[in-house]
Amino acid sequence: MATPGPVHEALAELELTDHHCHGAATAGLAPEEFAALLTEGAAWPGVSPFDSPVGVAVRRHCAPLLDLPRHAPPADYTARRSALGPREVNRRFLTAARAEAFFVDTGHAPLPLTSPAELAAAAGAAAREVVRLEQVAEAVAARGVEPDAYAAAFRTAAEEAVRRPGVVAVKSVAAYRTGFALDPARPADAEVTWAARHWLASGGRLRDPVLTRHLLWTAVDLGLPLQLHTGFGDADLRLHHADPALLTDWLRLTSGTVPVLLLHCWPYHRQAAYLAAVFEQVYLDVGLALHHTGPTRCRAVLEEALEITPFRKMLYSSDAYGLAEFHHLGALCFRHGLADLLQDRVDADELSLPDALRIAAWTGRDNARRLYGPLVSAPARDPSGRPTRKV
Amino acid sequence: MATPGPVHEALAELELTDHHCHGAATAGLAPEEFAALLTEGAAWPGVSPFDSPVGVAVRRHCAPLLDLPRHAPPADYTARRSALGPREVNRRFLTAARAEAFFVDTGHAPLPLTSPAELAAAAGAAAREVVRLEQVAEAVAARGVEPDAYAAAFRTAAEEAVRRPGVVAVKSVAAYRTGFALDPARPADAEVTWAARHWLASGGRLRDPVLTRHLLWTAVDLGLPLQLHTGFGDADLRLHHADPALLTDWLRLTSGTVPVLLLHCWPYHRQAAYLAAVFEQVYLDVGLALHHTGPTRCRAVLEEALEITPFRKMLYSSDAYGLAEFHHLGALCFRHGLADLLQDRVDADELSLPDALRIAAWTGRDNARRLYGPLVSAPARDPSGRPTRKV
Amino acid sequence: MATPGPVHEALAELELTDHHCHGAATAGLAPEEFAALLTEGAAWPGVSPFDSPVGVAVRRHCAPLLDLPRHAPPADYTARRSALGPREVNRRFLTAARAEAFFVDTGHAPLPLTSPAELAAAAGAAAREVVRLEQVAEAVAARGVEPDAYAAAFRTAAEEAVRRPGVVAVKSVAAYRTGFALDPARPADAEVTWAARHWLASGGRLRDPVLTRHLLWTAVDLGLPLQLHTGFGDADLRLHHADPALLTDWLRLTSGTVPVLLLHCWPYHRQAAYLAAVFEQVYLDVGLALHHTGPTRCRAVLEEALEITPFRKMLYSSDAYGLAEFHHLGALCFRHGLADLLQDRVDADELSLPDALRIAAWTGRDNARRLYGPLVSAPARDPSGRPTRKV
Repeated sequence: MATPGPVHEALAELELTDHHCHGAATAGLAPEEFAALLTEGAAWPGVSPFDSPVGVAVRRHCAPLLDLPRHAPPADYTARRSALGPREVNRRFLTAARAEAFFVDTGHAPLPLTSPAELAAAAGAAAREVVRLEQVAEAVAARGVEPDAYAAAFRTAAEEAVRRPGVVAVKSVAAYRTGFALDPARPADAEVTWAARHWLASGGRLRDPVLTRHLLWTAVDLGLPLQLHTGFGDADLRLHHADPALLTDWLRLTSGTVPVLLLHCWPYHRQAAYLAAVFEQVYLDVGLALHHTGPTRCRAVLEEALEITPFRKMLYSSDAYGLAEFHHLGALCFRHGLADLLQDRVDADELSLPDALRIAAWTGRDNARRLYGPLVSAPARDPSGRPTRKV
Repeated sequence: MATPGPVHEALAELELTDHHCHGAATAGLAPEEFAALLTEGAAWPGVSPFDSPVGVAVRRHCAPLLDLPRHAPPADYTARRSALGPREVNRRFLTAARAEAFFVDTGHAPLPLTSPAELAAAAGAAAREVVRLEQVAEAVAARGVEPDAYAAAFRTAAEEAVRRPGVVAVKSVAAYRTGFALDPARPADAEVTWAARHWLASGGRLRDPVLTRHLLWTAVDLGLPLQLHTGFGDADLRLHHADPALLTDWLRLTSGTVPVLLLHCWPYHRQAAYLAAVFEQVYLDVGLALHHTGPTRCRAVLEEALEITPFRKMLYSSDAYGLAEFHHLGALCFRHGLADLLQDRVDADELSLPDALRIAAWTGRDNARRLYGPLVSAPARDPSGRPTRKV
Repeated sequence: MATPGPVHEALAELELTDHHCHGAATAGLAPEEFAALLTEGAAWPGVSPFDSPVGVAVRRHCAPLLDLPRHAPPADYTARRSALGPREVNRRFLTAARAEAFFVDTGHAPLPLTSPAELAAAAGAAAREVVRLEQVAEAVAARGVEPDAYAAAFRTAAEEAVRRPGVVAVKSVAAYRTGFALDPARPADAEVTWAARHWLASGGRLRDPVLTRHLLWTAVDLGLPLQLHTGFGDADLRLHHADPALLTDWLRLTSGTVPVLLLHCWPYHRQAAYLAAVFEQVYLDVGLALHHTGPTRCRAVLEEALEITPFRKMLYSSDAYGLAEFHHLGALCFRHGLADLLQDRVDADELSLPDALRIAAWTGRDNARRLYGPLVSAPARDPSGRPTRKV
């Protein structure tokens, strides 16, 4: 561990922009629900979800916020969590995260989660919305549409969705649905119609490669920053299909259009760093890995991710989902890991202190401001009705 | 290096379960045989096999057990080794490993190796057997079988093999033969017959993709834990085809059946950790990499492998083959590396000492006990004749 | 950081062999030219190229050689660089690199670069030439050739190119053109003719898979060491197609022929290490990554690359291109990183000091001497006119 110094102080004080997260659960959680949220989806009989790096981190860094000792036993933790109730639990962790703003993916809520406005209120911070495009497409399909009208209907629905007040970005989970080993070209109308015919007839989630390509190209047309889940996620993934290097040809074709934010990336964060180093429009974060690997490893992951990444290209996100612990823990891991690595470089005279402070502020907040536009106090509908990065 | 503390003491005293290794050579080794065993198969003219990380580790950590100084010259090492003779060399290193049990893959012995019973006797430990299924299949082929009888003959032979006393697991080297980029589905009978016809006519090792899939699905039916070589190995491998992430679809299909143990994994240990984190039946180790990378790097490899791995999912193996040095060195690297990383976390108050001790015992011994069943003093044939995890 | 010790002293004094680099720019550089060279090709509006790991390293370690303070502001740096002029800038950095020899890839010079002789004169060192085979092939095409004469014409041109005085190796950038997921077999004459017909008619760079395979097999026939770009490079790359593990089948087929040097490798340096550990003819370096990741990370990259690499198989290269800063910075990063990791092992008694000094000298100089042949004072044409490793 590095000796704490001015970079630690600066990062402790910095109000972060968490540019990709989800809501926190609004209802009390049964033990198996808590377990499933703690471990990215899995609750296995006979194995405590606390017996994991993230479980250790929660007992160490979250228990004190629930008035428990460090390393509190799991049973004490869940009992105290239940006793306090979701509103108080969320308030404590969300305020502890000390974020200026949360950008909330609202497209995946199998259990009741805080809306962006509720998250903002609980945290005493701003919140903005990230529109998940697969959800928009699936809503179009659910409403009923003719195959040859799907492309236009999806585009219209997406345009409407991003016109909602507070929307700052769109997101795709193509990594989960098809992976990135796709033909990079924009599909022809006839292909889209053909694929839509098949999908609309068979139903289910959007998993068709042609429609996924169409979705990604429609995202380009929308003009907002595009967030892409890459790397680590739950069991629905084929991890090797979520290697962002597979996006290379598509990034070449879309060069000069919208910013593309590679989310999470682990264990392909070096591949993501390469893309951010050579493509102007590419940015990355190591969200999700921060709290799942915990504070003892997030410095290592950040160091690998930053090996060649330009300092204007790295952002912070928690990718917290369901448990407000993760909004806090992601921020804590990020602050500690980044401060340790930067302060050590300052102490070794490999980096000047002003540069270190600048890199810390960029990564934690200012790169997001630059990319998504500044926050204004009252997000409102843009009178022109057109997508805008200023909210 | 971490300051030694109670976790080091606990791991030094813990009798490990080496859940995947091979026998030690029973005859004296010519220099080129020793060289080939030292370096995973290669003995190159003009290059000393000692000029490698594993060679440095052997001179440092094995020489003293042969009554030589640390860092003894290679010529002294091999001379002393020859003078002591294989029986005494094996005894010294196998007892130094301080294992409770060795689980021995008996399916690959181009040179004479200790049987599990001989290994047990030399080590003063228990030994159990791991049945390599490719060897079973190749023995069936060698005995002669009609193509349309191959599937049943292989199944019968495998069932008989695992019914032998002391068998605790089966193993596949599909990584070497076809790699993991296979159709995950169980092949139809007609496909198996067709593929068997081709293989039985042409002979050689089992390398057919259909028969490999059939082998893996037969392993599922056997009900025992299935060990899969993944990642690093000798020159017969296509490394990128041994990335365990390629198993994802097959793991999804076999969910709820047998435990799957991903062996070695390096350099894809993070991919293996992901699989262990999201699939209930998946476990991993970083055997082979421990002694090949040596004690200066095994902490780093373990830390990467443990970034997201649930602590119930990591096991210890040496994957020692031929040289008893490796049974010792694997254990030594594992103990040092794991103790260093856990003790540092305790010292930084990121982990409680009781938790650290529990994780150490789980990883070194108890996860194997839980998975393979407890050792009993006298392994004996199960009277029912059916496969069982209790031996 | 390690405590400096005798290994640091030895590596500080060692005259390196930089076995793969390019020339330094001979003309003054406009700011955007400097920016593009600093960041592997990209100069983005509104983003300073100095805001990157390599930019930080240049300000820290190169500014003092231009009489500026450490961490000098970018504007001061570029102003001072311009004021000194390219000749003086090159002289300062090239002499600071303290290399015994530079092996210079002369095949890519969109802007005017020092010839090997000019580089040698500026550095006070020897220089040798590496022939880029794609350039030879493209020159053959540019001169005009019938498709069925292409194979022989390319072979003759390549043989002539390597007969030039001072040529020590050939190089291919197949990683950029087709990637390594190629049929490993030598293509038949008819295939080559057919592919040449297509290429010669359409023009452009050599990107045809059959002709790339032909080029690689012709390289084998030439008998000189073959350098292959792998891993990290500029935006023309598909990174995942440059994973050297994809070369496995080709390496198996070409076993026993020419040495193959895997250049750079990051982030696939562990895959490269595996290949170097199991194939006699394979060597690697982590050039390019050294200065792009900078001195704070090159130890980590070297440690990963050396985890299993035999110590006779690792070489030093800078892969410096255009900016003489990189000839210096590569050497500095290499010296610091390797000395830190070796000295720490000595201090922990994991490696003897004589072994550490031997490994340092091998890696920095002697492995290259052994592989490419000793330097003689006056490189001259071999009277037999046949390729030779002695220059």
